[in-house]
Amino acid sequence: MEYGKIFIKVYHIIKDECTQGSVADYIPELTRVNPDSFGVHLTTVESEHFSFRDSEVKFSIQSISKVLALTLAYEMEGESLWKRVGVEPSGTPFNSLIQLEYESGIPRNPLINAGALVICDILVSRLRNAKNDFLEFLRKTSGIHDIHYDADITQSEKSTGFRNMALVHLMKSYGNIHNDIEEVVDLYFHMCSIKMNCRELASSFLFLANYGVNPHNGERIINISKSKRINAIMQLCGFYDEAGEFGFRVGLPGKSGVGGGIVAVYPGKYSITVWSPRLNRKGNSHMGIHFLEKFTTETQTSIF
Amino acid sequence: MEYGKIFIKVYHIIKDECTQGSVADYIPELTRVNPDSFGVHLTTVESEHFSFRDSEVKFSIQSISKVLALTLAYEMEGESLWKRVGVEPSGTPFNSLIQLEYESGIPRNPLINAGALVICDILVSRLRNAKNDFLEFLRKTSGIHDIHYDADITQSEKSTGFRNMALVHLMKSYGNIHNDIEEVVDLYFHMCSIKMNCRELASSFLFLANYGVNPHNGERIINISKSKRINAIMQLCGFYDEAGEFGFRVGLPGKSGVGGGIVAVYPGKYSITVWSPRLNRKGNSHMGIHFLEKFTTETQTSIF
Amino acid sequence: MEYGKIFIKVYHIIKDECTQGSVADYIPELTRVNPDSFGVHLTTVESEHFSFRDSEVKFSIQSISKVLALTLAYEMEGESLWKRVGVEPSGTPFNSLIQLEYESGIPRNPLINAGALVICDILVSRLRNAKNDFLEFLRKTSGIHDIHYDADITQSEKSTGFRNMALVHLMKSYGNIHNDIEEVVDLYFHMCSIKMNCRELASSFLFLANYGVNPHNGERIINISKSKRINAIMQLCGFYDEAGEFGFRVGLPGKSGVGGGIVAVYPGKYSITVWSPRLNRKGNSHMGIHFLEKFTTETQTSIF
Amino acid sequence: MEYGKIFIKVYHIIKDECTQGSVADYIPELTRVNPDSFGVHLTTVESEHFSFRDSEVKFSIQSISKVLALTLAYEMEGESLWKRVGVEPSGTPFNSLIQLEYESGIPRNPLINAGALVICDILVSRLRNAKNDFLEFLRKTSGIHDIHYDADITQSEKSTGFRNMALVHLMKSYGNIHNDIEEVVDLYFHMCSIKMNCRELASSFLFLANYGVNPHNGERIINISKSKRINAIMQLCGFYDEAGEFGFRVGLPGKSGVGGGIVAVYPGKYSITVWSPRLNRKGNSHMGIHFLEKFTTETQTSIF
Repeated sequence: MEYGKIFIKVYHIIKDECTQGSVADYIPELTRVNPDSFGVHLTTVESEHFSFRDSEVKFSIQSISKVLALTLAYEMEGESLWKRVGVEPSGTPFNSLIQLEYESGIPRNPLINAGALVICDILVSRLRNAKNDFLEFLRKTSGIHDIHYDADITQSEKSTGFRNMALVHLMKSYGNIHNDIEEVVDLYFHMCSIKMNCRELASSFLFLANYGVNPHNGERIINISKSKRINAIMQLCGFYDEAGEFGFRVGLPGKSGVGGGIVAVYPGKYSITVWSPRLNRKGNSHMGIHFLEKFTTETQTSIF
Repeated sequence: MEYGKIFIKVYHIIKDECTQGSVADYIPELTRVNPDSFGVHLTTVESEHFSFRDSEVKFSIQSISKVLALTLAYEMEGESLWKRVGVEPSGTPFNSLIQLEYESGIPRNPLINAGALVICDILVSRLRNAKNDFLEFLRKTSGIHDIHYDADITQSEKSTGFRNMALVHLMKSYGNIHNDIEEVVDLYFHMCSIKMNCRELASSFLFLANYGVNPHNGERIINISKSKRINAIMQLCGFYDEAGEFGFRVGLPGKSGVGGGIVAVYPGKYSITVWSPRLNRKGNSHMGIHFLEKFTTETQTSIF
Repeated sequence: MEYGKIFIKVYHIIKDECTQGSVADYIPELTRVNPDSFGVHLTTVESEHFSFRDSEVKFSIQSISKVLALTLAYEMEGESLWKRVGVEPSGTPFNSLIQLEYESGIPRNPLINAGALVICDILVSRLRNAKNDFLEFLRKTSGIHDIHYDADITQSEKSTGFRNMALVHLMKSYGNIHNDIEEVVDLYFHMCSIKMNCRELASSFLFLANYGVNPHNGERIINISKSKRINAIMQLCGFYDEAGEFGFRVGLPGKSGVGGGIVAVYPGKYSITVWSPRLNRKGNSHMGIHFLEKFTTETQTSIF
Repeated sequence: MEYGKIFIKVYHIIKDECTQGSVADYIPELTRVNPDSFGVHLTTVESEHFSFRDSEVKFSIQSISKVLALTLAYEMEGESLWKRVGVEPSGTPFNSLIQLEYESGIPRNPLINAGALVICDILVSRLRNAKNDFLEFLRKTSGIHDIHYDADITQSEKSTGFRNMALVHLMKSYGNIHNDIEEVVDLYFHMCSIKMNCRELASSFLFLANYGVNPHNGERIINISKSKRINAIMQLCGFYDEAGEFGFRVGLPGKSGVGGGIVAVYPGKYSITVWSPRLNRKGNSHMGIHFLEKFTTETQTSIF
């Protein structure tokens, strides 16, 4: 299919909305971005590439890294992982701390902050050098070597991350954090600091569109069952309290980050990244969601 | 594909679990069923039929009817429907009343009780004779005339439905119920009382596997976009606080009822109903979920 | 002590605030009042009377009647009453339904709406003609015969009382309402409709300042222990989520109503009623609380 | 009044309950106590002393110190204190984190952990050497020099205090903690570690029974209005979610600690400390509450 032409068509339909929403500003590094940036990259499992506008500009992937951290932890830990974190949507953001209390320190899923902190705890337990090993894993899934942590973002996240510190201490009080808190949050804030461009991110997630195998080199990242389960978790939990809205409008499993990126996968066919840093009220890329909604309608590639 | 043989294979894998869980007993009518009943029926969009064991026994479909009520209301009301009910998962059951309060009487989605009551309110507003017209709609989607309300179940539901009465009054206090409460709950309790067998139920849902068209007669029930959106809502919200678990394990949009029925659809291919009245702790059919998990694995028909 | 002079002094200190706050308007009957009305009446256990301004104007006592309903139910039911309703403050108003769910249908205390509905249920069970017998009880505690239900207010309360209907149905679902819901809420809405003036209301509560005995005629209404316990409950729970603020600023047990009335008792000495219909954001009389704060400071009659 | 004889009489009434409840065991230091210890000391504002059994044994006062920290902070900060912490009861313990979220980091009152952490933050801001200055303040209110922090308890509290760390980080995320978190929690855990005996503790609180003046030496600790307000806060908030029960049964303002101590004050007359380390399900001394209930009934010294 000629995805590139559809990019142009869809972009023209929605481009009048390009000034809606606001760039995240809770750390200074996120504000140093052109708010009108817009990039798309789609990679098929047959290694076709389609790109549009700012697809080569690196941006902060933020929470999108949680899916890749989950993949690595799930591969090492297996199904016992689910004793420490659930697979259910989280409801309202307002509920995050309530639910941790009500459910005795077990986060609802691995893609909310509390769940990602448990995943980090598992990686710290399992890996010799978690920060380094996670970067290596990213390089393996994407086939791209030039992926790094951003020291400034890490530092800013740490200096404002009191709410995440509250979450990790609460889970520690329930026994669901096994390692030293400082080490766990250090990994967590590093993960959130990674910068990638649309093309790199689409490559990193392509194994989830290919039933667990990196199609670039045929290497299996994770087995087919786990690959499908990670997609199911993205579908249910990838957009905080807008998961339903995304599923309803876009119809693909995906994950967003407050840097304005969204990755989505169409199993058996492609992975796609859209980047547009202005966020809607729920903290997801305004243009990103609209673009994907029109794109999946035009291409009839919703999973539903 | 020879689905029938796979039914047998999967059933043998899981049959040792057939005594796990308990039949719903909050109304006497639900207890008058053989707890060891087990039926399956699959219908493809090419009108192939595959059945297994008790597929012709009628059972109380309960909450499964909420999807069909949503379909009818959505078709008449259009996208303005979503001003009165959301499309997000509901989180824990414990939250139901909290969220109605916190979100000013707007239920999280149309498949929880509060949301289905709003759907009933819309049907009462839109239809001349809502109870009768809803039955006619069911007959149209299924192609089966022999579908009725069960007066005993309706009566039992009404005499124990205090919690639903609390929900409807709370929403009325927020202005989100427009009609007389008695009329709305009368429709609601009638809907829950319908009895169908696995074959009939699979037929009723086949249009959702066929992008909105009833393949038996080519009649369009709802447009393709709405059909996909209803599937997305089932995926996110069809199993109360076990939606994630069902998506994770089965990988298909579906809806359960406390009568022990589960309907699931594989877009483009088939709809399937499993019925086994023993429920797990979350109120969903224990055997039904296990059967579908193994079945979608064997047939590789998860949407993910 | 010359309370009358202190009334004048305190009133002059606070009278510039007399336009702050708004009259309750959820039913039309409450708006048909002069918003600048202001009345006070204090009665001592030695039968001295001190009045100021609009002390003879009848107003809707609303929730103040809950204390007298509790007294009657407690006298008949004894300590087993506390199996069905707690004695703890309710926290935020936002919590009302949460807490009923979390605590399985047991309201936190008898002065919130849910608790008063349970008290009404007890009165319906215990009394031959609850509506009539409750009025007779009021006449006994106050020594005043001219006390009646207001039919217009009752009717208005019923036609807007959906939230109370939600509460009573939720409690019925937990088995904590034993009688027919219609009968219970009929008594409840009648109670809220009573009209009294400041003098009558101060007389009605004087037994709580006199350790359970009506000092007008020496008749014991309730024993000393129960009288003290009712005062403790008023102290902890009499002002919804402003109970702490009232205790902190006024330092007396008391109860407010949305009609703008406040009754407070100083054990061993006096009961006092202030009426001013403009309410603060928490739903309590703005001038009433300020007046009592200054009055207890001037007279050094806080219990603390 | 001959309080000593009443101690004996009341103790004999309740002594059969002396094995009910369990000693707190979340830190090892609290378990190193004779569970059957029982001590009482009452001091009147005329400097009479009445003691019973283990009144000279030092125990960990734990949360009781929060009232004295509040006194010191309130004296220095004045009414602006209440911008950072409320005066309302907290509702269920389950709600602690919910309410901090819902109310944007403002704790409900200064006697729950979150509120006491804000008080510690104020003391750190206001005092040159907060830990030292607080000890000096205790020595001043009690007239006793031999009061110290217990290093072992401090250390144990720190190593298990993850939940308090969660609270302080959450409040920091809302801007309601101004100082370095480590310094604030260091003061907090030190405060909880103080050991005193019944006589010392009764002396420390006597100013609250004497309208703000230490009757031993006539020194004013705090003005009369603030003294009454602190008593009101104890009445409403001194026993976590058993504040209503304590007010209802005992009828005095008071504060408990998990070390098994309870202090109560009867304004104008006396302060009393009871110590018995076995706790009820709500975390308050089982025998302590029963003793005070019978004692205030016998002596007719409830404030209600």
